[in-house]
Amino acid sequence: MIQTPYLLFLGDAPDPLAAKVAQGIRDWRPDFALGQLRLDGCKADMALPDMTLPEAYAAGARTLVIGVANRGGVISDAWKAVLVDALKAGFDIASGLHNLLRDEPELVAAAKAEGRTLFDVRVPSVDYPIADGTKRTGKRCLAVGTDCSVGKMYTALAMEAAMTTRGMNATFRATGQTGILITGGGVPLDAVIADFMAGAVEWLTPSNDADHWDLIEGQGSLFHASYSGVTMALIHGGAPDALILCHEPTREHMRGLPGYQLPTLEALRDLALTLAHVVNPGCQVVGISVNTKALSDAEATAYLAEVEARLGLPAVDPFRHGADRLVDALAAI
Amino acid sequence: MIQTPYLLFLGDAPDPLAAKVAQGIRDWRPDFALGQLRLDGCKADMALPDMTLPEAYAAGARTLVIGVANRGGVISDAWKAVLVDALKAGFDIASGLHNLLRDEPELVAAAKAEGRTLFDVRVPSVDYPIADGTKRTGKRCLAVGTDCSVGKMYTALAMEAAMTTRGMNATFRATGQTGILITGGGVPLDAVIADFMAGAVEWLTPSNDADHWDLIEGQGSLFHASYSGVTMALIHGGAPDALILCHEPTREHMRGLPGYQLPTLEALRDLALTLAHVVNPGCQVVGISVNTKALSDAEATAYLAEVEARLGLPAVDPFRHGADRLVDALAAI
Repeated sequence: MIQTPYLLFLGDAPDPLAAKVAQGIRDWRPDFALGQLRLDGCKADMALPDMTLPEAYAAGARTLVIGVANRGGVISDAWKAVLVDALKAGFDIASGLHNLLRDEPELVAAAKAEGRTLFDVRVPSVDYPIADGTKRTGKRCLAVGTDCSVGKMYTALAMEAAMTTRGMNATFRATGQTGILITGGGVPLDAVIADFMAGAVEWLTPSNDADHWDLIEGQGSLFHASYSGVTMALIHGGAPDALILCHEPTREHMRGLPGYQLPTLEALRDLALTLAHVVNPGCQVVGISVNTKALSDAEATAYLAEVEARLGLPAVDPFRHGADRLVDALAAI
Repeated sequence: MIQTPYLLFLGDAPDPLAAKVAQGIRDWRPDFALGQLRLDGCKADMALPDMTLPEAYAAGARTLVIGVANRGGVISDAWKAVLVDALKAGFDIASGLHNLLRDEPELVAAAKAEGRTLFDVRVPSVDYPIADGTKRTGKRCLAVGTDCSVGKMYTALAMEAAMTTRGMNATFRATGQTGILITGGGVPLDAVIADFMAGAVEWLTPSNDADHWDLIEGQGSLFHASYSGVTMALIHGGAPDALILCHEPTREHMRGLPGYQLPTLEALRDLALTLAHVVNPGCQVVGISVNTKALSDAEATAYLAEVEARLGLPAVDPFRHGADRLVDALAAI
């Protein structure tokens, strides 16, 4: 696990969107977001105190999280100078960048000299087991999508927040880089070796209290030719008791695959349930989460009502309307 | 690609079963099996000429293939001495062992000094692309199983042999270690990073002549909780035109998963077709391959007749009866 709280490194972000990792931490784990560190020209602002490394350390921060995408796929000299200073100031560093911290000799040397840790969350740091399919205690909910990038992480985080507010026993389980940085732990499932994918998901969602819910971050889509194997491993390793279907209604084709149409929500429901029943015969689809960002309020309301009537399940956009109706459905099973 | 023909290293095999890789090469690629090299106490015999390293090299062999499992998970000193001699005699070495040749400093040093190659086929040697789902020319057939280890590799190899005998244009595509050693190339799919699984299968089965069939070796099972993600990637990366269902009728539970029942052939047919249609709407199930080793001749005949009537598809045991009826079915689509 990555030590919290964090100092968020925003670097020289060219725009706010580049800092979406920092924004995710700010939104979903505000207690972890102690302050921000910005370089000249930074165009992102998390509305957090700007802190120097010593100030943040004194305030309790123990990890500098790279909350921003880098430009051109390299870690610049300007960044490196700050990262070395952070190690010297007593911070670990956590990063989801494609170029790994561990591939930078200066950072490796400084971390070693200072006894600090470099967390490259894009690659696994655990030898996961092969899945054994053993029934675990506690309950699990998995978000599955008609496509990639339709809001599965957001849905699971919003449900966790709503459940925590109600005093329910719930944990978001990250399976991607952003989710891992937000929560401080998880499995970078797309970087796991094929034979160990389902085992990694079992490892991530162990036996727990009978009333505990794991809210498992989804990845890919059963209908996405590039990544469907990862989704399959989430279903068979996660052995969910409940599924949430996630959808973006204006997408014209599967992400990155022109010529591939999105499936219907009915097709997703039927296929995901068939697969889930292999490992958990009691699994149910409990609700639908729709990303209505591209729709007006009126369009969104009409679309959700239509889906709800058609599938007979609560259909909400958790960003517009909150996740409470999804949590109600989960609490009812 | 691994250079052929081979000298098959049988080591100190404690019994014939330990040499199943060598047996597979002997059975399916007899032209590659120039000779065998056995140590004292070897209990396996491929009925090939026993050759010294210089004799085999003079006869044209260019790769020493480790055709036997090792004992205790270590490469013994006795083996190492032979392997170093082989490198000095001009051979590459190919191995599917869990302990990698590249992790043995003496072998690495000798290979480097001699300019030879160590092929550890258990781990990928290619940076596979992410699948792009593009339609390729030529045709593809994939074997899918109700469980792991039900005869998928055997079925695909037997179909390739029957097709080659008929003058059809067909290539077995290996996706596991044994298949790779038998044919000299392929993808060790269970060792590929999750994001690249389907792309590796696309890479393995590129566009080809319109009348060409790839016979893709299956892995895992859609119904096996540990490995189903690998099977999914085979279906979506392979985009098969034809599926062969493979089954072993006496198995009491899924391999390695007590408490998990095997699915029916009907359930496998329906699920595999649903998934295949995502990438290839024309995909058909053309036949059923049953491993009847545990049944008498009369039992096997009765079982196959029952399955054939029930599913309305040719059902054969290619080991007992040959793969011709499966090939007839393939040729008809």
